Amino acid sequence: MIRMNPKLIARRTRAIRRELDKKKIRLLIVTRPANVTYITGFLGDDSWAAIAGRRVYLLTDSRYTEQAQKECPSCKIIDRAGPMADAVANLVKKLKSVRTVAVEDSVSMADFEQLKKTVKARFRTAAGIVETLRSIKDESEIATIRSAAAISTKALAKTLPYIKPGVIESELAGMLDFQIRKLGARNSFETIVAFGPNASRPHHQPGTRKLKKKDAVLIDFGAKYKGYCSDITRCFVCGEGILPLFPAAGKMLAGRKEWRGHPGLVLDARAGRPRHTASPQTAFYKKVYDVVEQAQAAAIKTIKAGVKITQVDAAAREVIDKAGLPVYGHGTGHGFGLEIHESPFLKPDGKGKLKAGQVITIEPGIYIPGKLGVRIEDDILVTETGYKILTHKCPHSPLLS
Amino acid sequence: MIRMNPKLIARRTRAIRRELDKKKIRLLIVTRPANVTYITGFLGDDSWAAIAGRRVYLLTDSRYTEQAQKECPSCKIIDRAGPMADAVANLVKKLKSVRTVAVEDSVSMADFEQLKKTVKARFRTAAGIVETLRSIKDESEIATIRSAAAISTKALAKTLPYIKPGVIESELAGMLDFQIRKLGARNSFETIVAFGPNASRPHHQPGTRKLKKKDAVLIDFGAKYKGYCSDITRCFVCGEGILPLFPAAGKMLAGRKEWRGHPGLVLDARAGRPRHTASPQTAFYKKVYDVVEQAQAAAIKTIKAGVKITQVDAAAREVIDKAGLPVYGHGTGHGFGLEIHESPFLKPDGKGKLKAGQVITIEPGIYIPGKLGVRIEDDILVTETGYKILTHKCPHSPLLS
Repeated sequence: MIRMNPKLIARRTRAIRRELDKKKIRLLIVTRPANVTYITGFLGDDSWAAIAGRRVYLLTDSRYTEQAQKECPSCKIIDRAGPMADAVANLVKKLKSVRTVAVEDSVSMADFEQLKKTVKARFRTAAGIVETLRSIKDESEIATIRSAAAISTKALAKTLPYIKPGVIESELAGMLDFQIRKLGARNSFETIVAFGPNASRPHHQPGTRKLKKKDAVLIDFGAKYKGYCSDITRCFVCGEGILPLFPAAGKMLAGRKEWRGHPGLVLDARAGRPRHTASPQTAFYKKVYDVVEQAQAAAIKTIKAGVKITQVDAAAREVIDKAGLPVYGHGTGHGFGLEIHESPFLKPDGKGKLKAGQVITIEPGIYIPGKLGVRIEDDILVTETGYKILTHKCPHSPLLS
Repeated sequence: MIRMNPKLIARRTRAIRRELDKKKIRLLIVTRPANVTYITGFLGDDSWAAIAGRRVYLLTDSRYTEQAQKECPSCKIIDRAGPMADAVANLVKKLKSVRTVAVEDSVSMADFEQLKKTVKARFRTAAGIVETLRSIKDESEIATIRSAAAISTKALAKTLPYIKPGVIESELAGMLDFQIRKLGARNSFETIVAFGPNASRPHHQPGTRKLKKKDAVLIDFGAKYKGYCSDITRCFVCGEGILPLFPAAGKMLAGRKEWRGHPGLVLDARAGRPRHTASPQTAFYKKVYDVVEQAQAAAIKTIKAGVKITQVDAAAREVIDKAGLPVYGHGTGHGFGLEIHESPFLKPDGKGKLKAGQVITIEPGIYIPGKLGVRIEDDILVTETGYKILTHKCPHSPLLS
């Protein structure tokens, strides 16, 4: 159980109240789990929050009462026994002067229709009030995301020795998840591990495919720590002998204590140069990999508060397109925090500009069905003057021995 | 990637079409992920299905196109580049004669309002059409759930040796998840591991608490296999020396090949009797445990097609109430399948009767905040004449050495 700083919670609810005043909303029902966490500190499920005047209510049930009492010292906890709509009806009755109830538009039609049936009030939906605030991270949130990224990096380093011929995708994903758990964190989302051509499906679900020598490995994963996510994608090649194929990665690895002498890695002590000649398919993989790495670098370079989202998105696509390789169909990146996907969304039709304090991924990829898939993803903090890479300690793609 | 039996898919869509004809729905938009899987076979995310006449459409995007082509041979795959509402608008235009569109009421208000803005048609919501069908499992679904339960049992057996002083909750959860992954399955939901008094929170999130001797351990988990869930809760006590404390469990263990000689367990070869005297707190735990076990047995005994849901629910609560112990605030059980929680829901205000082919959990518990929590959960198939326990190979609660 984690208790968030009550001062932070108070600052957030003050900011939300200002928005509600502007929109003349007397009672807001918060249904999106991450929004509930943001304004109450509650990390459980199946609960709604309500904001009315200076009060924040948490509508939960007996499974979570004990947890809520510890996590939400500044909330009024409503321990409902019946349906959520009944709890809202009682609250509205208690508040008396509330005529119109605003409900977050993430609510399902089923719940909304139930509310309209049960509660004596007019209803309207409200969009993005808490989400807009959540998009800009405060210092404490950034620190927690840094910790989540550090746990991800450590967990991946511990997992590398298991990347060897014979392991199945699902097992490797499980080992990575275990290392995350061992470090006291959870998964941000279900880990993706894809071997060989399976990596051409960006959201491949790990199966029973066995790793073979010279197979490429794509791992997309993230540790969630104290409620906050991280999100990293790395690609490897299961080599025959030694590594690294990528000189830049080699230098990074050699320079980093936590990767040096790692049982899964043998570095060329002299210069980080490849010690063996790559096979033709590995050479093509390397070419694709280099283009993705350049595309990512091009996008990252554009990052700065005030830059159009579409400009960042286009920078990565341009590199891949110019190289004559197929441009990916997904977004170039997305914000994250309490949720793994949150505002802003970096895509060709994305709206608005980057803001200082946003934390985003940059994750271009190249996918050739039946052949290969390469994606490189890092977590980046947008600042007034540029950016900070939060996952810089997790080096890009060595080959594995 | 898993391809479901096309004949099964066809049978399901026929049954749904009959319902749609009755309700005069020409086009149904299916938004609930498990419903999408049920009628298309698609196991990815962020996709909707549509049923119109004899055709089933899958509305997905480039991340899933390759997967969809393999998993859904009988669907028309719509590879959308823009928003979902645009894809629906194009479909409605193509279908021409559709004037009213029915959308599942699990859709969010945001998506529903977007649809109304974008698509030239009247809109209505539809509730529970696919869910009602999903509630009754066919032979192939029951077989898959059995496999999921078998994987859970194996994974737990492999995890038992790690239940020893010093392990943290999160690490133990991770090891269990790893074993599930190693067996080629995924988690049905995020594994709950709670040590000592943490178990009094039914939905405790595994943290960094270290296991101590005589601590109780609650594990609530399930493997998901080929899209289908299992759901088991078991409680243990981290003993000092040998086990078992519970004679019945001892006999079960001694009789089962897969548990015999397990490194984490040392059975009393003669009779499965306790070899050491329990400490006072362990004795109280055992008393509570016995009541929960009796409550579960009482509920299970009532199970049969045609029995009222409230009767099953009451049977378990009565035993705990009579023993003078606090009755749990959650439901006594729930259906499961493609989702971990689906119809029927066994609770005091539950509606309807059990039906043959439903697969449900029975999971009463006793929770004393700050002290202990005990829950025992098994997976049960409802039959015309009674029931079948699908998790019988996963024995109840031994003490661990």
